[in-house]
Amino acid sequence: MAIRLQALIERLGGQLTGDGELEVTGIAPLDVAGPTEISFLSNAKLRDQASASHAAALILTEAEHGRIGPEYAGARIVTPNPYAYFARAAQWFAELAAPPVTPGIHPSAVVDPSARVAATACIGPHVTIEADAHVGEYCRIDAGSYIGRGASVGAHTHFHARVCFHARCVIGERGILHSGAVIGADGFGFANEGGAWIKIPQTGRVVIGNDVEIGANTSVDRGALADTVIEDGVKLDNQIQIGHNCHIGAHTAMAGCVGVAGSARIGKYCTFGGAAMISGHITIADHVHVTAATMISRSLPEPGKYTGYYPFASDAEWEKSAAILRNLTKMRSRLRELEKTVERLADNKKEEN
Amino acid sequence: MAIRLQALIERLGGQLTGDGELEVTGIAPLDVAGPTEISFLSNAKLRDQASASHAAALILTEAEHGRIGPEYAGARIVTPNPYAYFARAAQWFAELAAPPVTPGIHPSAVVDPSARVAATACIGPHVTIEADAHVGEYCRIDAGSYIGRGASVGAHTHFHARVCFHARCVIGERGILHSGAVIGADGFGFANEGGAWIKIPQTGRVVIGNDVEIGANTSVDRGALADTVIEDGVKLDNQIQIGHNCHIGAHTAMAGCVGVAGSARIGKYCTFGGAAMISGHITIADHVHVTAATMISRSLPEPGKYTGYYPFASDAEWEKSAAILRNLTKMRSRLRELEKTVERLADNKKEEN
Amino acid sequence: MAIRLQALIERLGGQLTGDGELEVTGIAPLDVAGPTEISFLSNAKLRDQASASHAAALILTEAEHGRIGPEYAGARIVTPNPYAYFARAAQWFAELAAPPVTPGIHPSAVVDPSARVAATACIGPHVTIEADAHVGEYCRIDAGSYIGRGASVGAHTHFHARVCFHARCVIGERGILHSGAVIGADGFGFANEGGAWIKIPQTGRVVIGNDVEIGANTSVDRGALADTVIEDGVKLDNQIQIGHNCHIGAHTAMAGCVGVAGSARIGKYCTFGGAAMISGHITIADHVHVTAATMISRSLPEPGKYTGYYPFASDAEWEKSAAILRNLTKMRSRLRELEKTVERLADNKKEEN
Repeated sequence: MAIRLQALIERLGGQLTGDGELEVTGIAPLDVAGPTEISFLSNAKLRDQASASHAAALILTEAEHGRIGPEYAGARIVTPNPYAYFARAAQWFAELAAPPVTPGIHPSAVVDPSARVAATACIGPHVTIEADAHVGEYCRIDAGSYIGRGASVGAHTHFHARVCFHARCVIGERGILHSGAVIGADGFGFANEGGAWIKIPQTGRVVIGNDVEIGANTSVDRGALADTVIEDGVKLDNQIQIGHNCHIGAHTAMAGCVGVAGSARIGKYCTFGGAAMISGHITIADHVHVTAATMISRSLPEPGKYTGYYPFASDAEWEKSAAILRNLTKMRSRLRELEKTVERLADNKKEEN
Repeated sequence: MAIRLQALIERLGGQLTGDGELEVTGIAPLDVAGPTEISFLSNAKLRDQASASHAAALILTEAEHGRIGPEYAGARIVTPNPYAYFARAAQWFAELAAPPVTPGIHPSAVVDPSARVAATACIGPHVTIEADAHVGEYCRIDAGSYIGRGASVGAHTHFHARVCFHARCVIGERGILHSGAVIGADGFGFANEGGAWIKIPQTGRVVIGNDVEIGANTSVDRGALADTVIEDGVKLDNQIQIGHNCHIGAHTAMAGCVGVAGSARIGKYCTFGGAAMISGHITIADHVHVTAATMISRSLPEPGKYTGYYPFASDAEWEKSAAILRNLTKMRSRLRELEKTVERLADNKKEEN
Repeated sequence: MAIRLQALIERLGGQLTGDGELEVTGIAPLDVAGPTEISFLSNAKLRDQASASHAAALILTEAEHGRIGPEYAGARIVTPNPYAYFARAAQWFAELAAPPVTPGIHPSAVVDPSARVAATACIGPHVTIEADAHVGEYCRIDAGSYIGRGASVGAHTHFHARVCFHARCVIGERGILHSGAVIGADGFGFANEGGAWIKIPQTGRVVIGNDVEIGANTSVDRGALADTVIEDGVKLDNQIQIGHNCHIGAHTAMAGCVGVAGSARIGKYCTFGGAAMISGHITIADHVHVTAATMISRSLPEPGKYTGYYPFASDAEWEKSAAILRNLTKMRSRLRELEKTVERLADNKKEEN
């Protein structure tokens, strides 16, 4: 399970300084990498570690290549983005280490005769695939997953064990859905009548682009009439809730426990810290970055970083600040009162002089 | 798949103005509905859209019926609550469009011989039904769901794929449980002994009324000794956590990511915005409305709307306000000091005059 | 299903006053317990209830034993920690009431021939166990659970229905995993390249100690290179998210909806209230207690109780306090201005006098 440096260059690019016939067997951090491993320098602070590294080869930028002297004796791969290069190289090593996937449908799986499953796909034990569903080439649908009626799964997409992908939903190519993800459950839509709730059928779909990853136990609801849309390259972590009719722009990433209420429209290239909450029916521009535990209650038409959580303190200190916060209007009144009094005093003074 | 207007009136009520023999094939928004579709006016702001609508028929109130002139030429259905009427009509269309459900037990399902499953129920692939469980008439238990020993599922209840409904729990009629919902896992109960936690067996049940809907990946824990109770008509969205021994009053609705700690007692007709958090052992009155991302830390004996989240700002502004908030006690001390000084100054002034 | 008091003492310790041959059939609260039941006094406020109890036997401390007079006529079990004693006694009753578990592999389960499953283990319907996995003595793996390639499950561990335990992860003895728990999904790790995210393979494991309980629909991600570690006796409630490479110290407990970002290192004997959020890459000392709904954004080197959530109010009051909070910097400026003015006035005064 070794890769020649020359093969790495041919597949992933980069300029090689050193012996292309050298074989590397894995990737490791700078201070740990041994003489058959490759490492990477993506943070200038670690330059000293890089210089002292025993790695067989180092992935680094042109600039760092110039700064690291001959004390580092191994090979070098120069590339504009060493971290991305590392990620791709690690993917390759992971592919080599992965157990082989045998195409075919496990005998315990229940696949409707009208479903179209590519011959190269691998359907695991206890999977259910309903009528008219489509599973593309080289897909992996792991144990216990469910694909609803008329749903469509693009080529090379991988459902880990126990994913639910409901009727008529669509996902593109190279997607990854983790265990417990539920795509296409009903949105939360009701009409109120005398206090009781009358269900509004949710007849839209979830439509997911290419290269999307969705984490464990994350839910994405189907649209009410129109669709919920997740564009290419979006990455959702675990335990996330996406309400019906949301639209999430390409390459946006959300950390764990984020909640997005229905019909929110989120731009491209955004990031959301863990447990950020987004109100429904608002619009968020491209390149917005929301800090963890922040509630976004209105639209954000401008890119930027937005934050709003209560800074923690010792419980005793918090008790005090929270008590004052509850009475902030009184404090403001006192300040106003004081301003008036002082103004009067200053005026008197002037008159006196 | 068309419905005559007269049939709609016979089933759902309302006064019809227009041709009862007209057939409609679906429901659409005012600006989109075509001449075979029905639409509804539930918001006075959309009156102009209604007037210009091409819909075959319009659901509207008596008052709006009077305000919309002959420029709208289609049929009209007058009803006090057009939105609720729309919901019921949409349900009917959805029923017509739904694939037929064939009663019976899929051969891959594992049903204990002592379980009683109604002949009209539909048990999907890879379902497990344990001993002494009961599944009522016209239930649908979809692929991979689990029904524990002695649990009871009322008529017309629908478990989507991969629901867990644990031993001895009970749900009434017409319930809907979405994929990944876990009803009746152990509550979080431990005795502490020298720092370590000793498990307290959770032997209560979850008892759920009629017409309850529970979202994807939501958890409702069983009671410790007594039961966790969810009354009729409650609607829980996705990713919600309901702790042991909670009691949720009828027709209360909770949006996604809400958490309710153990033994909270919540009234009827309440609503909770997304990610609202409710402390344990508190009581919340009927008709309480909690805003999203709000932590309710003590009982609410009065109806009303309650809110408490940190208003977001640009990260830089938040940094400033958070820093002051941390020092709010100092700010209050300065204000007090100032008040004293000013009072002294004012007193001196009086003495002078 | 009765236990003699003498048998209880022999198994769980404590000093018995009364008839050891007496048989008790269950445990109940002080005011409810009947003459064949046992009860416990763990809170001095309930002393009057204890005195008046009809319980067959009472678990209590030495001190309370002295305070409760002959008006309570039943037997007494004296122990330093009555609540922990109650928990253990309740466990015993629960064991007696539990339906028998028959060892063996259900015919619908799919177990790879290379997996080693102890003969005393009970593998339920529709379980999948992948190659080279190991399931220890007396384990219970309930319906629809998944155990990945090379994973290892220690003796007496119980997976409830529909648990996912992914490849190469390890759990010790006497663990309890609730339905929907996902252990060992990929951590959320990506390199950014021109806005798009490149996946970093997650090749670490989740390594879990003995006596760990993990709640329904909780996710614990596998490490990127190193492992995610959960030490002995940790208790995680439902709907929790633990990011990759976290380390959670022994006997720490987390309530529902907590989120812990990647690489956080949390001490022993900590507690986290519901929906507490922990930033990544921080270190939290032993014996830290975090209040519900609190965001911990930096390391906590000292034990103690920490809090930080916005205190709720009526919506109208919150609107006011939030508006002031947004302008807290202005308020501080006004205060400073006022201080200067007042100082000037006071100085003038002095000069005058």
